Amino acid sequence: MRHFAGGAVDEDVLARLLSAAHQAPSVGLMQPWRIVRVTDLALRHALHDHVEVERGRTADAMGERADEFMRLKVQGILDCAEVLVVALGDDRERHIFGRRTMPHMDLASVSCAIQNLWLAARAEGIGMGWVSMFVPEVVAELIGAPEGAEPVAILCLGPVEEFYPRPMLEQEKWTSVRPLDELLADNSWPR
Amino acid sequence: MRHFAGGAVDEDVLARLLSAAHQAPSVGLMQPWRIVRVTDLALRHALHDHVEVERGRTADAMGERADEFMRLKVQGILDCAEVLVVALGDDRERHIFGRRTMPHMDLASVSCAIQNLWLAARAEGIGMGWVSMFVPEVVAELIGAPEGAEPVAILCLGPVEEFYPRPMLEQEKWTSVRPLDELLADNSWPR
Repeated sequence: MRHFAGGAVDEDVLARLLSAAHQAPSVGLMQPWRIVRVTDLALRHALHDHVEVERGRTADAMGERADEFMRLKVQGILDCAEVLVVALGDDRERHIFGRRTMPHMDLASVSCAIQNLWLAARAEGIGMGWVSMFVPEVVAELIGAPEGAEPVAILCLGPVEEFYPRPMLEQEKWTSVRPLDELLADNSWPR
Repeated sequence: MRHFAGGAVDEDVLARLLSAAHQAPSVGLMQPWRIVRVTDLALRHALHDHVEVERGRTADAMGERADEFMRLKVQGILDCAEVLVVALGDDRERHIFGRRTMPHMDLASVSCAIQNLWLAARAEGIGMGWVSMFVPEVVAELIGAPEGAEPVAILCLGPVEEFYPRPMLEQEKWTSVRPLDELLADNSWPR
């Protein structure tokens, strides 16, 4: 997650980012994404407080790396310019095109939309982080989502102090980056 | 899915596309993507034959739209220049960063990688289609994936006759495209 620098995202810029997301391909053209822009400060705080609880629980599950984990910047809900909650729509089950054997392809499509938004943000000089430390049902209730809908991302967007030269989790020595050639092979599983 | 025009994808171009995929962000920097490039003709045919069976089963599940569905071009495995199978790695369960409450965030990360590849392909004038009409276990066996790995995409890549001016499923009147403002709202669920 970036260190946000304060300042707003211009409305025209935000509109371009949302348009980039909405132009993503989707399985069976079902457009499963639903986006809630958080402008209400009480809602923003409620999301923050829930994520902070879940951040602590994740740390507990980390065992000996708990303290190290807690020093990482993994959310910026209160300090970023814009918070978007992205969710899977509630009317998904009628779509079987490309989802009969793999119903989770709706998440794949929403992720394509979020990656479009991410790249568009970077092109505009705007930093973004995807927070996934939350219980979907809790966030669903906070945004008033109907039954069957499923939040998958809290996106933190805004001007940043600087972009990391390397992925933050590599820079902070949380993990190392594997090269592509370890993850790619011809006609068989990469070893 | 595009109508492929024949002809190869230059090796340098393919390397750029794969590099774009590999630069995607991932939850906890886990890089869950594994990529199998299909150069073996027997393997390509085996994937094709399985997808054709599943295409028929999807049509059966479509009821009164079965014939209409069967006329759509939903895979190009035999006529595209390059086939890539993309899968989730088998060593995922040790990664809990951002996945404790939402283990499916690994699929989200792989989808970001695929969307990067998709955009890079389009920028190079290469068409791509994401086939998801298969049984993951069957494709896993065909590519020799270990237990715990999970194929999520058969990607068809190659030069195309032309790019559709509108999404193919809209153009063929399979479905209509919803505007962004129906899927977006402030502080509450979009209605």
